[in-house]
Amino acid sequence: MKNLKLATRELDQRTIIKISNVEIGRGFTVIAGPCSVESEEQMFESARAVKAAGADMLRGGAFKPRTSPYAFQGLGLRGLKLLSQAGKETGLPIVTEVIDPRDVSWVAEFADVLQIGTRNMQNYSLLKEVGQTGRPVLLKRGMYSTLEEWLNCAEYILSEGNPNVILCERGIRTFETYTRNTLDLSAVPAIKELTHLPIIIDPTHSTGRVNLIGPMSLAAVAAGADGIIVEVHYDPAKALCDADQALTPTIFKDIMQRLRPLQSFMDDLPS
Amino acid sequence: MKNLKLATRELDQRTIIKISNVEIGRGFTVIAGPCSVESEEQMFESARAVKAAGADMLRGGAFKPRTSPYAFQGLGLRGLKLLSQAGKETGLPIVTEVIDPRDVSWVAEFADVLQIGTRNMQNYSLLKEVGQTGRPVLLKRGMYSTLEEWLNCAEYILSEGNPNVILCERGIRTFETYTRNTLDLSAVPAIKELTHLPIIIDPTHSTGRVNLIGPMSLAAVAAGADGIIVEVHYDPAKALCDADQALTPTIFKDIMQRLRPLQSFMDDLPS
Amino acid sequence: MKNLKLATRELDQRTIIKISNVEIGRGFTVIAGPCSVESEEQMFESARAVKAAGADMLRGGAFKPRTSPYAFQGLGLRGLKLLSQAGKETGLPIVTEVIDPRDVSWVAEFADVLQIGTRNMQNYSLLKEVGQTGRPVLLKRGMYSTLEEWLNCAEYILSEGNPNVILCERGIRTFETYTRNTLDLSAVPAIKELTHLPIIIDPTHSTGRVNLIGPMSLAAVAAGADGIIVEVHYDPAKALCDADQALTPTIFKDIMQRLRPLQSFMDDLPS
Amino acid sequence: MKNLKLATRELDQRTIIKISNVEIGRGFTVIAGPCSVESEEQMFESARAVKAAGADMLRGGAFKPRTSPYAFQGLGLRGLKLLSQAGKETGLPIVTEVIDPRDVSWVAEFADVLQIGTRNMQNYSLLKEVGQTGRPVLLKRGMYSTLEEWLNCAEYILSEGNPNVILCERGIRTFETYTRNTLDLSAVPAIKELTHLPIIIDPTHSTGRVNLIGPMSLAAVAAGADGIIVEVHYDPAKALCDADQALTPTIFKDIMQRLRPLQSFMDDLPS
Repeated sequence: MKNLKLATRELDQRTIIKISNVEIGRGFTVIAGPCSVESEEQMFESARAVKAAGADMLRGGAFKPRTSPYAFQGLGLRGLKLLSQAGKETGLPIVTEVIDPRDVSWVAEFADVLQIGTRNMQNYSLLKEVGQTGRPVLLKRGMYSTLEEWLNCAEYILSEGNPNVILCERGIRTFETYTRNTLDLSAVPAIKELTHLPIIIDPTHSTGRVNLIGPMSLAAVAAGADGIIVEVHYDPAKALCDADQALTPTIFKDIMQRLRPLQSFMDDLPS
Repeated sequence: MKNLKLATRELDQRTIIKISNVEIGRGFTVIAGPCSVESEEQMFESARAVKAAGADMLRGGAFKPRTSPYAFQGLGLRGLKLLSQAGKETGLPIVTEVIDPRDVSWVAEFADVLQIGTRNMQNYSLLKEVGQTGRPVLLKRGMYSTLEEWLNCAEYILSEGNPNVILCERGIRTFETYTRNTLDLSAVPAIKELTHLPIIIDPTHSTGRVNLIGPMSLAAVAAGADGIIVEVHYDPAKALCDADQALTPTIFKDIMQRLRPLQSFMDDLPS
Repeated sequence: MKNLKLATRELDQRTIIKISNVEIGRGFTVIAGPCSVESEEQMFESARAVKAAGADMLRGGAFKPRTSPYAFQGLGLRGLKLLSQAGKETGLPIVTEVIDPRDVSWVAEFADVLQIGTRNMQNYSLLKEVGQTGRPVLLKRGMYSTLEEWLNCAEYILSEGNPNVILCERGIRTFETYTRNTLDLSAVPAIKELTHLPIIIDPTHSTGRVNLIGPMSLAAVAAGADGIIVEVHYDPAKALCDADQALTPTIFKDIMQRLRPLQSFMDDLPS
Repeated sequence: MKNLKLATRELDQRTIIKISNVEIGRGFTVIAGPCSVESEEQMFESARAVKAAGADMLRGGAFKPRTSPYAFQGLGLRGLKLLSQAGKETGLPIVTEVIDPRDVSWVAEFADVLQIGTRNMQNYSLLKEVGQTGRPVLLKRGMYSTLEEWLNCAEYILSEGNPNVILCERGIRTFETYTRNTLDLSAVPAIKELTHLPIIIDPTHSTGRVNLIGPMSLAAVAAGADGIIVEVHYDPAKALCDADQALTPTIFKDIMQRLRPLQSFMDDLPS
């Protein structure tokens, strides 16, 4: 793909991103937690549940990009602090979204991984800013973007000096309405062909249906993905956003009890 | 989904379609063979190769719906006879596409399974005609069609009295150009939620890239699909259609050597 | 565009299709009438209304390709006879859809123009059959198809010896849900660049909204289209199909009273 | 559409935005100029050419959001000053894109209208910032966004206290590859149904083909749009971006000589 320099070099030297005891790009990393940080109880209960089920990292949104200006927009700094404390208590590194270039430096003091959401994939000011921090960046694919455009956005970050980019396929927009978006799982082997960067899957936002998350998580393992990021809420009925698609701790645990053995099996399968 | 009657009843009584010793809907059925029947040598060599690698059924096109009227359109009856002979020699039941309602009755005398291609998914005259034969029908999803429209097409066949419909997800049309189409693997658990019919995956036409076929075949197993249909040609460089995406016998064999153990593993995994 | 021979030659010699006193490709042809033929009263009242408002040709479906097998599928031969009689009474040539290759020869005895619907654009058996009649063919664009694929389907008809192909843009499938499909009006100048064939617009099926049909009809004139095909029903609330998008005779008349002067204005505008 | 408050009230009181002697929402406003400001000569020659041909406003990019980090990104402040001077010399108000919330206040000192590009439609920090200036905002539709999402982005601006939002349809992403994007011209009457805000069309970025810009500009007039924004470069072959789709001054003049009479004709047509 033309114009790409850093994203596509040395395919045999795959990027592995170390965050505390987690290595993204080696094994299969499970990132879980609520869509947004809503309260101390919600955050800590959810964090304990995902930890107990075997998650590797904790997610939670303090700044929520919402379609409507009148929808809940997140708790901001207070949410970030709750997320950080829940991460510390459980020993899980944390991932959180940043949406404004002016917030990057201080959010980076709390977050182990900075997430760029699908709506901001081509927010180049934001990409440059996260490229200048030392924090790993989880770059979601724009719901409307080709692999080539996505890798060019990774290139924006890499070219600022930050080599730690994790790609995240989260579904693309199609005509299908049964699912929220269409998960493009073939992006996993395609991205592996094209770049040395790790790629994870978001089965929650792509499918938007609780019953599809388990099968798509297992499929992500079999397709060779480096991990998943899923929404788990200790009580989805009370969730302030994405209530319909958050997993309960019980369902998440069930998925993990199938996922981890599959991961081991795949590791042992001769390539 | 409104209007559906036969496709959606009794989800717990899943349809299993018996074709000789193959049972589609139980285990994982691998259908393989060339895009089109081109010659005796090509057909028999390809059939022997897929049999040797462990395929369950043999595919091959005698009537090819081609974008251009000037492209190779298939060998017709002669192709059908070669396919039938290759099936008999190898003991593999055969799947072949029918594109004209006037051909259904005589093609059904050769074919074990009649395939409806993506361009003809909403060719209702053809659907009614295959609904009136006793042959199982492999119904490919229209590259532009929703799950609801697809199931309505199955309903056309079922309502004519033919209960043996196999759904086949073969990729949908999106803006992405790296892959030929976008494989909607989430259709597997979605279809399982909605209907009792078996669903298989076509990793060849959806991705259009040899390197993506293996990972997507394994992902299909993990997602709970009932099988795959893949193009294998004994010498892809000589293929008269789809030369870029046909597997060599060697690559197909490698995929099968990973796929079958995964299938066994998944069978044993507690649900 | 590769593979095209007959559709793209001699762009300066534009195809004009004469049907009685109508010339498609010269001036601006308005084809109007109900979605389906439902009864004598409905057909004749609708025909008189569109004639009175200045339509050039009459449309009506006797065979309706419906998403569900349980929906009204048209009156068949009886509908065709009613349409034919209504055409004779009003002096309007008639356009009707044919969906099965076995029906082409006898439907062609009634119809002045044979319509190929969007779902059958790539039904190559049907294309070949209409290519072998002497009747002009109105070829709707597949809702999922590129200009190149569409022109290849025209090529199927042309290559059978029938030079009278009218292209009809009827909206493509996108993610937008406010409109039924997305009208690709830029197809008009694009097709004029690529081929000598006339192109008309279907503002009814593309937008699916009564209020959008008038503005899109005027826009079609300004964009250089050769005509429109619109659904008009003498009493839309009673329509057996497409009740939500059929124009009343009054609204159709209002549109025509703006459209015809615009057409004259455009004819006089120096190019 | 749910959640919308300010964008949808009082449809009969249409918003008219006054900028010097231009009124967007009354008549038909033509905004023209180069993709990016490249040099003094280029900017002034292009500005004089569009003024001579009858443009109402001048466009030019000082900050260019480019797919690749290695592509020309605009001249920044220097470009803004050149654009401003060219606007003053020709008496044309200027429109320019802003891509970073930190730049809004100072860019607003130069620009008469602030443009939000398609990639930033859902950059909510940026929307809030331009909502807090007194400058009119030209809000391009996301190439992947529904009308509902687009109007919600207008709502973000309106809810910050800035009532002067101009919507701009610039093509949506579809599977068609002949055009750069697919111009959704039906958005014009749809938006007029839904909101009181003015809507203009960008025929350049939507079609990406010089030959399609004229017909689509005329179609925009007939569809009831409030204006167009087009790229005109005094020497397209030398353009640093979008060289393939910029109009020459001569072609632009030809389009204007057809567009203005059509506009007068449409104004006089009884509604």
